[in-house]
Amino acid sequence: MTDASPAARTRKGGRTARRVARQAAPAPEQSPISPGLQGGLYRPLSDSEVQSIHHAALELLETVGLSGAPQSGVDLLTAKGCTYEDGRLRFPPSLVEDTLAIANRTPVLCGRDPKNDLDLSGTRVHFGTAGAAVHMVEVDGKTYRDSTLQDLHDAARLCEALENIHFVQRPMVARDVHDNLEMDLNTVYACCAGTHKHIGTSFTEPHHVAPALEMLHMIAGGEDAWRDRPFVSNTNCFVVPPMRFATEACEVMEECIRGGMPVLLLSAGMAGATAPSTIAGAIVQSVAECLAGLVYVNALRPGHPAVFGTWPFGLDLRTGAMTGGSGEQALLTAGCAQMHRFYDLPGGAAAGISDSKLPDMQAGWEQMCSNVMAGLSGLNMVYEAAGMHASLLGFCHESLILGNDMLGQVQRCVRGIEVNDETLSVKEIADVCLSGTGHYLGTEQTLARMQKDFVYPTLGSRSSPKEWEEKGKQELLPKARALKEELLAKRSPARFPADLDAQLRAKFNIHLPQ
Amino acid sequence: MTDASPAARTRKGGRTARRVARQAAPAPEQSPISPGLQGGLYRPLSDSEVQSIHHAALELLETVGLSGAPQSGVDLLTAKGCTYEDGRLRFPPSLVEDTLAIANRTPVLCGRDPKNDLDLSGTRVHFGTAGAAVHMVEVDGKTYRDSTLQDLHDAARLCEALENIHFVQRPMVARDVHDNLEMDLNTVYACCAGTHKHIGTSFTEPHHVAPALEMLHMIAGGEDAWRDRPFVSNTNCFVVPPMRFATEACEVMEECIRGGMPVLLLSAGMAGATAPSTIAGAIVQSVAECLAGLVYVNALRPGHPAVFGTWPFGLDLRTGAMTGGSGEQALLTAGCAQMHRFYDLPGGAAAGISDSKLPDMQAGWEQMCSNVMAGLSGLNMVYEAAGMHASLLGFCHESLILGNDMLGQVQRCVRGIEVNDETLSVKEIADVCLSGTGHYLGTEQTLARMQKDFVYPTLGSRSSPKEWEEKGKQELLPKARALKEELLAKRSPARFPADLDAQLRAKFNIHLPQ
Repeated sequence: MTDASPAARTRKGGRTARRVARQAAPAPEQSPISPGLQGGLYRPLSDSEVQSIHHAALELLETVGLSGAPQSGVDLLTAKGCTYEDGRLRFPPSLVEDTLAIANRTPVLCGRDPKNDLDLSGTRVHFGTAGAAVHMVEVDGKTYRDSTLQDLHDAARLCEALENIHFVQRPMVARDVHDNLEMDLNTVYACCAGTHKHIGTSFTEPHHVAPALEMLHMIAGGEDAWRDRPFVSNTNCFVVPPMRFATEACEVMEECIRGGMPVLLLSAGMAGATAPSTIAGAIVQSVAECLAGLVYVNALRPGHPAVFGTWPFGLDLRTGAMTGGSGEQALLTAGCAQMHRFYDLPGGAAAGISDSKLPDMQAGWEQMCSNVMAGLSGLNMVYEAAGMHASLLGFCHESLILGNDMLGQVQRCVRGIEVNDETLSVKEIADVCLSGTGHYLGTEQTLARMQKDFVYPTLGSRSSPKEWEEKGKQELLPKARALKEELLAKRSPARFPADLDAQLRAKFNIHLPQ
Repeated sequence: MTDASPAARTRKGGRTARRVARQAAPAPEQSPISPGLQGGLYRPLSDSEVQSIHHAALELLETVGLSGAPQSGVDLLTAKGCTYEDGRLRFPPSLVEDTLAIANRTPVLCGRDPKNDLDLSGTRVHFGTAGAAVHMVEVDGKTYRDSTLQDLHDAARLCEALENIHFVQRPMVARDVHDNLEMDLNTVYACCAGTHKHIGTSFTEPHHVAPALEMLHMIAGGEDAWRDRPFVSNTNCFVVPPMRFATEACEVMEECIRGGMPVLLLSAGMAGATAPSTIAGAIVQSVAECLAGLVYVNALRPGHPAVFGTWPFGLDLRTGAMTGGSGEQALLTAGCAQMHRFYDLPGGAAAGISDSKLPDMQAGWEQMCSNVMAGLSGLNMVYEAAGMHASLLGFCHESLILGNDMLGQVQRCVRGIEVNDETLSVKEIADVCLSGTGHYLGTEQTLARMQKDFVYPTLGSRSSPKEWEEKGKQELLPKARALKEELLAKRSPARFPADLDAQLRAKFNIHLPQ
């Protein structure tokens, strides 16, 4: 080995350049990860198992059907070919197949800023919040308290700043707004004022939709602008499993569809309580229910954007309590994602739920397990991906921030392994070994790959024990707490212009301070 | 709905039975998980990508080859058809293919108790410890201190009691035993005295192997008994990547093979330093090196049990420090597992490494990420699966105990989704919906599945916030600490009979107290 060898020259000459490059943050186009990476390499079900689940769902729709539809739904669906007797709508397989042929396969969920648009085609994966937690988890005192509108707004603001949270479905309930209509309207306001990313909400009553649309038209700059780029979708818990339409939620859904709002068809059975205890059975029922919902949506407005929301949850059968941090939950979600791919429909399910009360090691392993399996299985919309504790009862801002770090690693896994002549590195290995430098630290490839192939943690620590001790053994939660305070100290860039805000406040009783 | 309906009768009549069943621990044959579950449904590489990696490895072996072989290896391998010039052994593809034809595909790694035997055929997955940590992590004071022989013995004892730790490869170095020979011998003693599970160790010098074998013959009850069921394997870091045999480690390996000890062919390149920075390139080099090792082993003793140990590690290219908690690491390991399956060889790699200094949320997500991806990809031997912190520098007993919980959920994921007429539950769904009970809590299936389908955490909490508060907001680490103290308060059942122990202590300088 001599300094004159090409590799040695590269190494010495490149040292300053490397140091500079190492300190620079990657340009966006250089970032190793982005929203909408394609998953799908993990397939928990064989092709024939997928077929079995599909045919079981069709059989259930034809022979058991769903009760509980509002009269409007009965009228709509019998006109399309459903039968209706003993209070149940039954769906002939041909109607389901016809619906699958016309359903929207490539919806885009818009952000208020188009750079945040979510393309739900194929196996593109997006992570975001969701849920209806009733508590905020305060990590300092380890306390659970009622969640508020300000908490919700702050969550949206944090999500705006966290690059691995791709959408903001309302994760918690504003319990300090007691009137249901005002809660629904303030939820929309607080989320929109916090983020330009796509927002999800869930209206409690059909007559809440019209005023909410009025607010959204104002924010969008008119009804046409809203209908052109609807940046809020509605979560419709359109069924009360097993196999029963939620009458009022169906009416809400009809209103949303008429108003041009994308819908999430959410079937949230609990395996062992409101769905079969087997993973396969819970998926079958959830698929059947969402197929019924899809027929409903497309009967009302063919091609309306709808997310196929098979969200079966796990249950701890010892206690009968919901649980979301288990391996069973991860399998439920991944299996559903594979069914979405079979139908080639935009799909969503729940992952990232922790049963732990705090952002501790249990929370870490639970949140990673279902998130990474959801991502690898190509789930389009991974709901509840960060911040969720106590089996969905509690939401935690610090955990959301840490979840952003975690989801960065998840997305790196989804991006997968690139294999081509360059990455196989045969020539590079030969050069390094035969030229005598014997290592890769100085190669052009290593430098070039440093920013575009590797995901670095923001808060996660990679220091040595010695460095860690020297820096005061800094722990994870105080770091998250500090970042939270830093992010929330700034005024939200998503806040509305003063004149619009004044109009909104004149029209609606906005509880969030100006 | 009337009480006379079959489902209602089942529910009421079954309440007491259910309560009893819920309280009983599952019988072993009822357990939902077990060592050796079959993975392999996650395939990060396409078939053609696998072929590309294989052919790149063959090309490297033929054109670059490996330097550093001891004279014994040069003699052995040139006699088999390798060329030897410029200090490098080069391997013709035909020799590699011939080796693949005769290599042992179905080794069993024995436990001292046969119930702990590990069948490494196909995609069977096993989790265990490994590494060479130099620190113990004390969770109470958050301190890192030198690891000792007692720590190692205690780790083995804990593993003996933890059902989801399937083998005990020495995870840390006994730094209080200063003589290298005595350290190697005491490591074997301390591990064997702590567990009946399969043990892995790593001898530092060739002449340490003979006395260690003498000790193992005594423990086994003679050389024949040892050779019949060798319950200790040796980790051979037989290469110093890139593409260089570790001379002395090869000599250790030769001694182990002659002594009937299974070997782990460990290639631990660091992607970006001693291996290419690309995931594909690091896998290529690791596969090439392990193929060279496999030729070596089979040249010396055809069919000798050898684990194909492609262990590429990640590197933080900003600092040049090793990192093991990243998505890149999980992909490196899963990609290697898929290469093992392509060769149909028993394989092992590293997963479960945390870069965090403590068993915190970061540790949880990092350990889960690579472990679950390793399991789903069908890795036979998942090394470093629990307890490892600070990028392998620190081992933590409490984390090991919590890792057991985590690995239970990982194994549930590996077990996957069972799809058959019963689990699809069409009849059950129809019964529940049409009979009018409307839920599954009382069904025979739910009761039957409760123990055999669901994995429950030991220390992980699933209680509601209210219950959690009422029980004093118990945290995870103190619970792990308490379980550790309970487990270590008992005398190890793996301790040797008094007469054998006296013989061992007469023959060897055993540092572990009696």
